[in-house]
Amino acid sequence: MTYNLLKGKKGIIFGALNDMSIAWKVAERAHEEGASFVLTNTPVSIRMGEIHKLAEACNAPVIPADATSTEDLENLIRQAMEHFGGKFDFILHSIGMSLNVRKGRTYDDLDYAYLMKTLDISAISFHKVLQTARKLDAINDWGSVVALSYVAAQRTLYGYNDMADAKSMLESIARSFGYIYGRDKKIRVNTISQSPTLTTAGSGVKGIDALMDFTDRMSPLGNASADECADYCITLFSDLTKKVTMQNLFHDGGFSNMGMSYKAMNMYNKGLDNFQLTD
Amino acid sequence: MTYNLLKGKKGIIFGALNDMSIAWKVAERAHEEGASFVLTNTPVSIRMGEIHKLAEACNAPVIPADATSTEDLENLIRQAMEHFGGKFDFILHSIGMSLNVRKGRTYDDLDYAYLMKTLDISAISFHKVLQTARKLDAINDWGSVVALSYVAAQRTLYGYNDMADAKSMLESIARSFGYIYGRDKKIRVNTISQSPTLTTAGSGVKGIDALMDFTDRMSPLGNASADECADYCITLFSDLTKKVTMQNLFHDGGFSNMGMSYKAMNMYNKGLDNFQLTD
Amino acid sequence: MTYNLLKGKKGIIFGALNDMSIAWKVAERAHEEGASFVLTNTPVSIRMGEIHKLAEACNAPVIPADATSTEDLENLIRQAMEHFGGKFDFILHSIGMSLNVRKGRTYDDLDYAYLMKTLDISAISFHKVLQTARKLDAINDWGSVVALSYVAAQRTLYGYNDMADAKSMLESIARSFGYIYGRDKKIRVNTISQSPTLTTAGSGVKGIDALMDFTDRMSPLGNASADECADYCITLFSDLTKKVTMQNLFHDGGFSNMGMSYKAMNMYNKGLDNFQLTD
Amino acid sequence: MTYNLLKGKKGIIFGALNDMSIAWKVAERAHEEGASFVLTNTPVSIRMGEIHKLAEACNAPVIPADATSTEDLENLIRQAMEHFGGKFDFILHSIGMSLNVRKGRTYDDLDYAYLMKTLDISAISFHKVLQTARKLDAINDWGSVVALSYVAAQRTLYGYNDMADAKSMLESIARSFGYIYGRDKKIRVNTISQSPTLTTAGSGVKGIDALMDFTDRMSPLGNASADECADYCITLFSDLTKKVTMQNLFHDGGFSNMGMSYKAMNMYNKGLDNFQLTD
Repeated sequence: MTYNLLKGKKGIIFGALNDMSIAWKVAERAHEEGASFVLTNTPVSIRMGEIHKLAEACNAPVIPADATSTEDLENLIRQAMEHFGGKFDFILHSIGMSLNVRKGRTYDDLDYAYLMKTLDISAISFHKVLQTARKLDAINDWGSVVALSYVAAQRTLYGYNDMADAKSMLESIARSFGYIYGRDKKIRVNTISQSPTLTTAGSGVKGIDALMDFTDRMSPLGNASADECADYCITLFSDLTKKVTMQNLFHDGGFSNMGMSYKAMNMYNKGLDNFQLTD
Repeated sequence: MTYNLLKGKKGIIFGALNDMSIAWKVAERAHEEGASFVLTNTPVSIRMGEIHKLAEACNAPVIPADATSTEDLENLIRQAMEHFGGKFDFILHSIGMSLNVRKGRTYDDLDYAYLMKTLDISAISFHKVLQTARKLDAINDWGSVVALSYVAAQRTLYGYNDMADAKSMLESIARSFGYIYGRDKKIRVNTISQSPTLTTAGSGVKGIDALMDFTDRMSPLGNASADECADYCITLFSDLTKKVTMQNLFHDGGFSNMGMSYKAMNMYNKGLDNFQLTD
Repeated sequence: MTYNLLKGKKGIIFGALNDMSIAWKVAERAHEEGASFVLTNTPVSIRMGEIHKLAEACNAPVIPADATSTEDLENLIRQAMEHFGGKFDFILHSIGMSLNVRKGRTYDDLDYAYLMKTLDISAISFHKVLQTARKLDAINDWGSVVALSYVAAQRTLYGYNDMADAKSMLESIARSFGYIYGRDKKIRVNTISQSPTLTTAGSGVKGIDALMDFTDRMSPLGNASADECADYCITLFSDLTKKVTMQNLFHDGGFSNMGMSYKAMNMYNKGLDNFQLTD
Repeated sequence: MTYNLLKGKKGIIFGALNDMSIAWKVAERAHEEGASFVLTNTPVSIRMGEIHKLAEACNAPVIPADATSTEDLENLIRQAMEHFGGKFDFILHSIGMSLNVRKGRTYDDLDYAYLMKTLDISAISFHKVLQTARKLDAINDWGSVVALSYVAAQRTLYGYNDMADAKSMLESIARSFGYIYGRDKKIRVNTISQSPTLTTAGSGVKGIDALMDFTDRMSPLGNASADECADYCITLFSDLTKKVTMQNLFHDGGFSNMGMSYKAMNMYNKGLDNFQLTD
């Protein structure tokens, strides 16, 4: 079902790699809802991924940009404004990466140069996007900016490593810049805290399958999919959520407010039974 | 702008008194978005208010019910199901009242019979609605239930009195029942924590004007209006937010995550200056 | 080890039934730390439990009171003030009970008279204690009031039922009354959110053993014991925490801020393995 | 009053500059409570401040270290262990600085090299301290690590700038490392979120006086002083709080859970009156 919720709206979508990406799904849904947008990713992600397929389907230009480079961002935003013939309305930030995770450095053995990279890519890039857009006065009043986060920003999960600290900082940036951008330009800034999702990035997280089984059984509605996340993004880009800002919005089937579910406890109990039989 | 977001959806809306009511605005917007619904309120509110005007405009039956009476609720829900020819999709709970506030009893001088009334009307009624609907299997899978709350559930505001405790409990009920209703029927249950709003109920709160000036200057986007709240409700009743449940969602222009804004501090400083001059 | 942390301090301790009770442990530790106090419980709990043993060991009078009765509370506090020859310094509220749980009514089949009882015993009683103390001006400036809570106030746990709503309300009362009592008398009011604990009350919760295994493996420091909770209470009654108020303080080995631990995931995985083998 | 709460305990205290510093007060109180410790700060802070006075009064060695340098930290911790003849029990991290604030760069005009500095000094240094201590196995089982934070980690305050993001990250590090250090060594890691305090660092924050007037009137117990913060730290280093970990503990007279107080509203209203008279 489509509703023309984003008819006439223009935006920039960061982070679509392939059709497992949340950003990919958001682009597809935004297109269906009548938005036009620019797609962007790093040159290497563009080469490795399939963004051009998406671009074709959505009739969207692809402008490469490393979101940690303010120069690239300036270029991207200027080009986007040229493309649109003026300001635009929304931005999706779906970017995150930890070299410490990739290289198998545990959280008590961080490489601090890698940590700086994690922060720059996964959190500070969001500030850079916002600051650059603000300086170029690129977003229309009552525009909407969304970044994707994860519950690790509030609660520690084994193996999520320095990405937890990056997500905490990301959510803080949404609040800090949300205040300024709201006050000055009526633009809202929020994060969506999404269920663990089997994107190419998500697959890298250790034990993701078992974790996803757990969160699925803990969540009364089950894990939220990338498609469902795209639907939710659409509401946040629409004119129906104009006064929602500086929030971290859980889109997770209820996981964030669960302490223990019947289903997850049952599975845990099987573990206990097994343990007591064999131990 | 309308989008047909609720095309074919059916629901029950509690709490429309007059055109200042949030529930009134939700009804108007739900109607515009293609929903059909039953309006309900207590017999006395129906007499004192103007719900029949709304009913006519929205082509909606009015079925009186005291939401603290499970008998009334059963009757209401049965009649609604008859009216719709089956199950429905959404419920709005916009009900709250404190006799302690009305009678001027301060929070350190509560009348406990009044407190029980506050809880029954403002919080337990939400459980009664949910339990009755669940027993009658009245809501379609992937339905959506929303209740209106206030930030006093988290933070103490002078004069809000025992309504703060009722709102805390209301939000807890959304979580507790949201787990069960999600697990069993895929139905989501959320609360919206709305800016202070000049409804007939809101007007009763002491010093509401000055408080609203403060929250407006604190909130980067200003206070959220009843109309904007209605827009937000629509997204929560739509199919675009299927995996959002057990959440308390702040719809407040950013107030909930502000510590101090430039504008509010400026006004406070005027108070300090004045104070230092004259004191 | 003892420190004389409560030397000269006087208080009232609610809720000691037997030596599994947290309140019992708090009494023992408060005694060791130099406090004198009055013990209280309902007449039936006094008969069924062993409070007189504790009273003897701590040289403390036992004054029966039903904490839902303002008359009983008035009598208790007056007698305590007579006993102490004046005001006192601290109160521990360790009271909770749900007839819905006891009678096996699930959360979607609550008996509302029972729910009212749950609220009255487990939450409103705290307000009654505070309001009565306030009216009798019974607590010294910079006194400290603590009630015991549980993480179910924030997150839904299967089987905890209407006690979750009661605990949410209890924590709200701590904030609401904490504001007034702090402003007027410099008295602080907090709740401790304690690990699941095998008290006589705790034992009634369904599946408590398996849940405690889970929370123990989730918590980096393991579950907090009743003895450790008593130690923590002592710090909150002492003069070293004078500016901590209106807070809910987690005393749970870290559970509240965990999303998933290595140990709990391991056990869950055993369940998954088992499940996949046999299913 | 002293209690010998830290008798026999050894630790490292970061961040004492002069007698306005919270770390200074913590050192004094830790000394009174029977602890022995090493004082540390950057070479420049040691030159500019008066740490040697404190060192003399507490009979504590001063070992210079830049907390952003893992080399310095290694040297510091090795020397501390030599000094103590083995492991120690507690660490206080009271370090924070923003070049963006100092140089008057607003949050929408951040210098990103400065931001990296802010993060390195104010947040990552905490990780470096923990990781270095962990690698050198420097802290006794059941030891306690505390860092000082501020409510800006949760709520945006005009002018607090990139320190808000740093504090969010700091609190995340406490959770992330608290999990590991708790699981492996039973060591707890917490942050204290302290009232705005007129330290040499605090004085740099724009409009700090007016803000402190506001927070003081908002907080039922008034702002917490540096001395009171020291008292609270003592409880967290003591054996009475062994199961408190991964928490952010508000020590702020109740501010964090206030929405609006009578006193602050009164002052705000004076501003409104003044405004309406003269505007």
